[in-house]
Amino acid sequence: MPVSIQNPVSERKWGFDPPPSGTKSSLRHHKMKYCSFCAQTVSRKTLDGDTHQRWVCDGCGHIHYQNPLIVVGCVPEKDGKILLCKRAIEPRYGYWTVPAGFMELGESQAQGAARETLEEACAEVQIGHMFASVDVVDAGQVHLFFTAKLLGDFAPGDESLEVEMFSEDEIPWDDIAFHSGRYALKKYFEDEGENNGVHIHELRRAKS
Amino acid sequence: MPVSIQNPVSERKWGFDPPPSGTKSSLRHHKMKYCSFCAQTVSRKTLDGDTHQRWVCDGCGHIHYQNPLIVVGCVPEKDGKILLCKRAIEPRYGYWTVPAGFMELGESQAQGAARETLEEACAEVQIGHMFASVDVVDAGQVHLFFTAKLLGDFAPGDESLEVEMFSEDEIPWDDIAFHSGRYALKKYFEDEGENNGVHIHELRRAKS
Repeated sequence: MPVSIQNPVSERKWGFDPPPSGTKSSLRHHKMKYCSFCAQTVSRKTLDGDTHQRWVCDGCGHIHYQNPLIVVGCVPEKDGKILLCKRAIEPRYGYWTVPAGFMELGESQAQGAARETLEEACAEVQIGHMFASVDVVDAGQVHLFFTAKLLGDFAPGDESLEVEMFSEDEIPWDDIAFHSGRYALKKYFEDEGENNGVHIHELRRAKS
Repeated sequence: MPVSIQNPVSERKWGFDPPPSGTKSSLRHHKMKYCSFCAQTVSRKTLDGDTHQRWVCDGCGHIHYQNPLIVVGCVPEKDGKILLCKRAIEPRYGYWTVPAGFMELGESQAQGAARETLEEACAEVQIGHMFASVDVVDAGQVHLFFTAKLLGDFAPGDESLEVEMFSEDEIPWDDIAFHSGRYALKKYFEDEGENNGVHIHELRRAKS
């Protein structure tokens, strides 16, 4: 039986913060109505030997899996300062973030983090080690953060209003766009340049 | 405009090894014919402001993104030996693997790795630190491996023929199911129980 895999987020937003408690848990899977292979209707079913409900085609039986997505980001450093981008897009327009975005097919995590930095900050980087991993459970996302060396100049890309270098005591902590990025920055500075392994964090909506 | 995200692999197989060189690169995205929201046909298009081709609905304009998937696994350890499972399913029926599988919505990476261990080896584990990350680029997958403490008994789950504990010199290196798992096991033993950060590896088909 042919199968495919779909991701859940109803809107393509990385850096998604957990919704307020009490919000309906609609992001765990996204709705679909028709099979993308035969255009027949689909239904939610738990198949024999499976532990989860899936979208299954009522016609051809195709299973449309939905699984978490990967966001890759990095902290570009040069001369003790790090690069941040002021977002020119929603969500969190006008807030600061490390360069990051959805990993694409055909690239490694390091290539993805470098590509996002080129797109958002017109900056080339050399990716170092992974230092933070954040499970953004209710958004169906995993955010992976890497150290990086900034190799040259920078400038705002299409998705950025400004790009600036900050020392640790200049970081605009109250204006950081996303919980995951704030966590990563905190851990980045705590590490003081050492590879202390991956700091793992879980973001989940408070139960109500 | 509503968007959804689909994963590329045409068959739901983790542990996918790179196809032989010369094989067509059909796994970078998977085919779809119809929009899962309105059942109209879809076409490959590069939209304004985007860097990649996507499946876009010819009717409602919905963008069907396809992105890499996450496989989570762990190396359950007790008294200096580690647990491996002999696969009862294809691919690699009869070969040995660490417990691992596709991460599901609604769980953290650690929960996913623990769930897979329970399913494949009927074993409870306490997940430790992430120690290996393998980009399986041509399969559109990222394999993340964690250390783990085996907490009790074990037995073959539905997907395993056997489950056994191995010391380092007993590991059946020639019968390990997947490149990513073999890499993870090598690094696991090199670390000798220390957290030396995440060992990063990239698997890509040889160019021909």
